[in-house]
Amino acid sequence: MDRSFVLFGDICYTESCDRIISCPASFLVVEEGKITGVFDRLPGEYRTLPMYDYGGRLVIPGLSDLHTHASQYQFRGLWMDEELLDWLERHTFPEEARYSDADYALRAYSIFADDLLSSPTTRANIFATIHHDSALVLCQLLEERGLAANVGKVNMDRNCPPSLTEDPQASLADTVSFIKTVRERFKRVHPIVTPRFIPSCSDNLCRLLGDLAVRMDVPVQSHLSENTGELDWVSSLCPDSASYADAYRRLGLWGRVKTCMAHCVWSRDREDELLENDNLYIAHCPDSNTNLSSGIFPARYFLDRGVHVGLGTDIAGGTSLSLFRAMTDAVKVSKLYWRYVDDSVPKLDFAAAFYMASKGGGSFFGRVGSFEEGYDADIVVLDDSDSPTCIEGLTVAQRLERYSSLCPEKPVCAKFVQGEKLQTGY
Amino acid sequence: MDRSFVLFGDICYTESCDRIISCPASFLVVEEGKITGVFDRLPGEYRTLPMYDYGGRLVIPGLSDLHTHASQYQFRGLWMDEELLDWLERHTFPEEARYSDADYALRAYSIFADDLLSSPTTRANIFATIHHDSALVLCQLLEERGLAANVGKVNMDRNCPPSLTEDPQASLADTVSFIKTVRERFKRVHPIVTPRFIPSCSDNLCRLLGDLAVRMDVPVQSHLSENTGELDWVSSLCPDSASYADAYRRLGLWGRVKTCMAHCVWSRDREDELLENDNLYIAHCPDSNTNLSSGIFPARYFLDRGVHVGLGTDIAGGTSLSLFRAMTDAVKVSKLYWRYVDDSVPKLDFAAAFYMASKGGGSFFGRVGSFEEGYDADIVVLDDSDSPTCIEGLTVAQRLERYSSLCPEKPVCAKFVQGEKLQTGY
Repeated sequence: MDRSFVLFGDICYTESCDRIISCPASFLVVEEGKITGVFDRLPGEYRTLPMYDYGGRLVIPGLSDLHTHASQYQFRGLWMDEELLDWLERHTFPEEARYSDADYALRAYSIFADDLLSSPTTRANIFATIHHDSALVLCQLLEERGLAANVGKVNMDRNCPPSLTEDPQASLADTVSFIKTVRERFKRVHPIVTPRFIPSCSDNLCRLLGDLAVRMDVPVQSHLSENTGELDWVSSLCPDSASYADAYRRLGLWGRVKTCMAHCVWSRDREDELLENDNLYIAHCPDSNTNLSSGIFPARYFLDRGVHVGLGTDIAGGTSLSLFRAMTDAVKVSKLYWRYVDDSVPKLDFAAAFYMASKGGGSFFGRVGSFEEGYDADIVVLDDSDSPTCIEGLTVAQRLERYSSLCPEKPVCAKFVQGEKLQTGY
Repeated sequence: MDRSFVLFGDICYTESCDRIISCPASFLVVEEGKITGVFDRLPGEYRTLPMYDYGGRLVIPGLSDLHTHASQYQFRGLWMDEELLDWLERHTFPEEARYSDADYALRAYSIFADDLLSSPTTRANIFATIHHDSALVLCQLLEERGLAANVGKVNMDRNCPPSLTEDPQASLADTVSFIKTVRERFKRVHPIVTPRFIPSCSDNLCRLLGDLAVRMDVPVQSHLSENTGELDWVSSLCPDSASYADAYRRLGLWGRVKTCMAHCVWSRDREDELLENDNLYIAHCPDSNTNLSSGIFPARYFLDRGVHVGLGTDIAGGTSLSLFRAMTDAVKVSKLYWRYVDDSVPKLDFAAAFYMASKGGGSFFGRVGSFEEGYDADIVVLDDSDSPTCIEGLTVAQRLERYSSLCPEKPVCAKFVQGEKLQTGY
């Protein structure tokens, strides 16, 4: 359909944290892969465009997953009794070491890519492993399915098993090669510089990667202030830094390019740098933060201070690739933060959670995650008819809230990225 | 098959909080609706019994839902921004008032009963509404599907809308009639005395119902210490009582018969009565307690002191009828309790959650929820083959943990109650 079409359905999106816009039985006009607008009656000039009729279905912007580990997908739903550092040692590093085998990577990443395809996600920041060739396998699988993603070959040169410990110069060279190859081969999949976190990366490696990101104009993703044990470790590794964020800043990895930091559970009141740099994004990963007993990120506190906050599924600290689950979990943990930690931070409502998962996180990828004019036509179609209810008169937004709470694992009906319909097989 | 058969599969159950028993490729022998045992090789004497072959499937005991509201099922997944008391006023009471219409009850309860049938639950304590005839409709629908449940006609005579306010004597008479009718008509569905909670029930009504339960030998279900606003209200309603639990005790509703109290979020350190009465069961409803910002029940604290604790889905404070979701949520909130409230209370692990959902809660209904000899043959068969993983060598218990985390909404493959196979339609 040449990326210009009209899509009819019960349309729902948000421009801000505060309100969801409900457009029942409306027309979404897409031209050359970009949103033209949403209309309750189709203007005459668009009547010649091809039409997708999703009458009765929910139509929302594609969601953005700001943080997940494709290489941990195989053990999702298992082994979550430990906290972060023990969990990395015992479960995560041994599994990630298997990706030295590109055949294993192909098998495992295929499962991940298929499930991502059937999820509501159209954009994602993804960690692979340190392995250059396996990371390219992942990029290929995503590109073949039409998904848009930033994929990172992970960098690590200390405090990890020998099989995952890189030489810093070799790590840099592999990363340069990875960036160039991804840019040559792929259209929707892009590279992202991915130092795992300070405990796994020497000062030298961090500096090399920070400069590389600026030189080659590549975004950065990493982890920040997830767990109290990690905080203590970073303090001892970086005794001159005022905070974990300050350590990244001193090492040249703080917001010189667009940068996504996962978690920030313990950042409030100690890392004001988050409030001061517009390149910084926080990936809020509530399921993972609960499963690994890390704590609760006070999302509303940061949203109210103008910080970019999106949601992450953080497989396999998180169990589900569905951002609906992340939205529901974000609301839930905000209520416990309010109850037990600080009742001056308001609870999140569904509108705020939907904003984080759509336009909030989407802005990391450009004009993504809304149906405002000029946005990329990332569109997801959902069927909520198989969970009937006798409650009548629900708005489109209420139906979406209900769908999100009830059906986080259900495959989507249809999915478009930049106006191209993907072969979801459902 | 006359309720005597052999069932082959990957069997899993627990006898205690501490350990799950994994029996891969094993034989579960059932005679006259009761468990004989689990065998890795089938003894000769059972080889003439009919055989269900569920090779490769997970086989677990039917789960017990200690607390849910069938009458709130229609608005599950919606309207959870308020706390308990406002939520009751604005959403719950208006919906429950609709059940004065038995036709509405038939439509709405049919959806509930169908979903309960496809869930892993075989036993449940269920709240209907105050309406005698509608509550009988619910019993009929459950009985037709072969489900076992205790159903309560709710009692309320104060602090609720006029349409839900009963006269205490009429409420008593309706309850007597309901108990007698259920006992006459139904085999697997039983009555349970159901004063909503102290704010909705006058002292007079509570005393009448407490005596009725003893006289007719009917169990009791109600709510206890869910929300701080509710606690304050009960204090002002019962100024002579030392605690909410003490108020129930003074009113004759405290463990004179088997009694299930939902929530108990705020009971620790103020309601030691829970530790002293073996008739008392706590229904831990983690999803609801989070959604309504009530707080976190410290399950491990009470389990370690020998209190009966099972799980409840608490629709529609909770969103899902799946006890797998409740198990996963119980583990998750225990980690946040440990992190933010009291790190001397150990976190729950999956074994403890599975115990609460199976044998722990099941004991409210008799010898239910285990595959030990003499237990009722409540059996659930699950298919975990559609979420593939490259991780090999998982035990049956690990597969169950993974299934529970990933697929809480998926219909079960097969379900047996007291040795009778239900028509689940899947």
